Amino acid sequence: MSQINVGIIGYGNLGKAVEEILRTRKEFKIVAIFSKRKFVKSQYEVKVDRLDNLEKYKDKIDLLFLCAGSYDGVEKIGNEIIKDYSFIDSFDTHSKLYDYISKLDLIAKERETVCLNACGWDPGILSLVRLLFNSISPSYFTANCFWGSGVSQGHSQAIRQISGVENAIQYTIPYKAIIKKCKKLCDYTPDSTVKHKRLCFVSVSNNIDKQKIKDEIVNIPNYFKGYKTIVKFVSNKKILDKQKKLYHKGIVIRNFEILDKFKTQLEFRLNTKSNPHFTAEIMIMGALAVYKLKQENKFGAYSLFDIPLKYLTNCDYEKIIKSNL
Amino acid sequence: MSQINVGIIGYGNLGKAVEEILRTRKEFKIVAIFSKRKFVKSQYEVKVDRLDNLEKYKDKIDLLFLCAGSYDGVEKIGNEIIKDYSFIDSFDTHSKLYDYISKLDLIAKERETVCLNACGWDPGILSLVRLLFNSISPSYFTANCFWGSGVSQGHSQAIRQISGVENAIQYTIPYKAIIKKCKKLCDYTPDSTVKHKRLCFVSVSNNIDKQKIKDEIVNIPNYFKGYKTIVKFVSNKKILDKQKKLYHKGIVIRNFEILDKFKTQLEFRLNTKSNPHFTAEIMIMGALAVYKLKQENKFGAYSLFDIPLKYLTNCDYEKIIKSNL
Repeated sequence: MSQINVGIIGYGNLGKAVEEILRTRKEFKIVAIFSKRKFVKSQYEVKVDRLDNLEKYKDKIDLLFLCAGSYDGVEKIGNEIIKDYSFIDSFDTHSKLYDYISKLDLIAKERETVCLNACGWDPGILSLVRLLFNSISPSYFTANCFWGSGVSQGHSQAIRQISGVENAIQYTIPYKAIIKKCKKLCDYTPDSTVKHKRLCFVSVSNNIDKQKIKDEIVNIPNYFKGYKTIVKFVSNKKILDKQKKLYHKGIVIRNFEILDKFKTQLEFRLNTKSNPHFTAEIMIMGALAVYKLKQENKFGAYSLFDIPLKYLTNCDYEKIIKSNL
Repeated sequence: MSQINVGIIGYGNLGKAVEEILRTRKEFKIVAIFSKRKFVKSQYEVKVDRLDNLEKYKDKIDLLFLCAGSYDGVEKIGNEIIKDYSFIDSFDTHSKLYDYISKLDLIAKERETVCLNACGWDPGILSLVRLLFNSISPSYFTANCFWGSGVSQGHSQAIRQISGVENAIQYTIPYKAIIKKCKKLCDYTPDSTVKHKRLCFVSVSNNIDKQKIKDEIVNIPNYFKGYKTIVKFVSNKKILDKQKKLYHKGIVIRNFEILDKFKTQLEFRLNTKSNPHFTAEIMIMGALAVYKLKQENKFGAYSLFDIPLKYLTNCDYEKIIKSNL
């Protein structure tokens, strides 16, 4: 495989993590980082350009890592860049994914590009595990998923969008008693709001009505509405400290009784010290698939469900089979 | 999807489990069971025919479940039936898989059939998990896999092939201390023979040289050679009792440090009260993929690595995305 020339759109935690890891991978070459903000400087002296200038790079870039925030960035940018570029994102607003991918697929097929969407930790790896677990003995109750304890970047960013909020970090915390119950029973699939609480540390500008901010946070649809949400107002310094440790965890559990008599338990656990770096690793893995699909003229928008797992690795087929099957 | 007409080859534990589960699935209709043995009778009054008569069913069967034993049956039968039938198997001799699938692929493409091979619990589900785990952050050590404690059908059958052996059951037992070490360290991937011991209960005919049988068992390549293997000679009655509980477990663990600083742990656990029934469920899941691939004229021999996960379920695409992504 020849070297893959890539660009990175967005230079927050995720964009920086993608850059940091790609520098250690000889299969990839970072051509430029694109940002909406002025005066952004790469931590590794990679060229940074304004997103408006992206069109100048058409012939220089094989694929883009779209690392903008899901809350307001990915969808809008994705719908635009697909016209000329293949790309990968980790868009995480579950409720919007079907429409997003369907729309992209039409454009990608017409413009002969490829994108892989929702390719992060969740949606992403945890989704693959859920679909696999749920496809086995499908007559029974579906898998239970737990997130945390850990930092959700999407939820933190959703809070930061609120006017008057200076900085924020959000911890998703699963209820241990519910995990235990889900591991034991075969017919218990409570709603996500029953399984988790959300703890938010928020710093605000002076003279801001904190109660109003709090009300706004707990009512953000898809992110907080329906969850037990605790909001704590703290200094920005305290949040900056907490942002140094962006760990996260995830669990998928499925229990069923084959023929109502043979109990079977499937469990997946993920525990990472850095959610942005783990998400970056998943996107880089997915980028190999985007590149290969493009080379094979298999244009369109994909989720991880649409791609054979062998596309996610650089190994040749014989090695894949001999080392893993 | 119209009803899928299937046949089952082999009527041991696995064939019986496939039959038992398929009867509860309205997407499938069992046309006949095929056996090499005379006087086999279905537990549910399904038609039983001799394997030699298979050719009479060409127009009546969409796909075959190949449930013969891996030790001497699957490979031979698979290479024959692929000429006229699409089929699925759970062939489990890891060292032979690449050659087996490569050979089948040539014939399948020529004869316009489809087969999905090595689609059981391991190789199968555990292989998918291994490849997924190993594709993330691939610069580091690969995943560790543990089997058991539980009954391995393949190993039990390998013992039963020995002349003079009346019946046998084999338990694969992982060393707990090694599991613990693998969960802790990022750079420890001991050989499978270091991670497990094998406990065999064997009943033999009268006047048999037990030491000779024992020597034969511990030296079976791919199955026992290199493992600490304990052989206990017991009555057939005792083995028949043990064969009522064919439970099994499996673990895949992968630890790595992204950029040598962010520790990440991935863990998968499977625990089933019936290995044959769980394997049957995996094969039935895979059979949906075989059927769809055939309908789409995508002829060839596949492993689970070659198939997008969405092929493994009956749900429509919108539901797959909305319920799992």
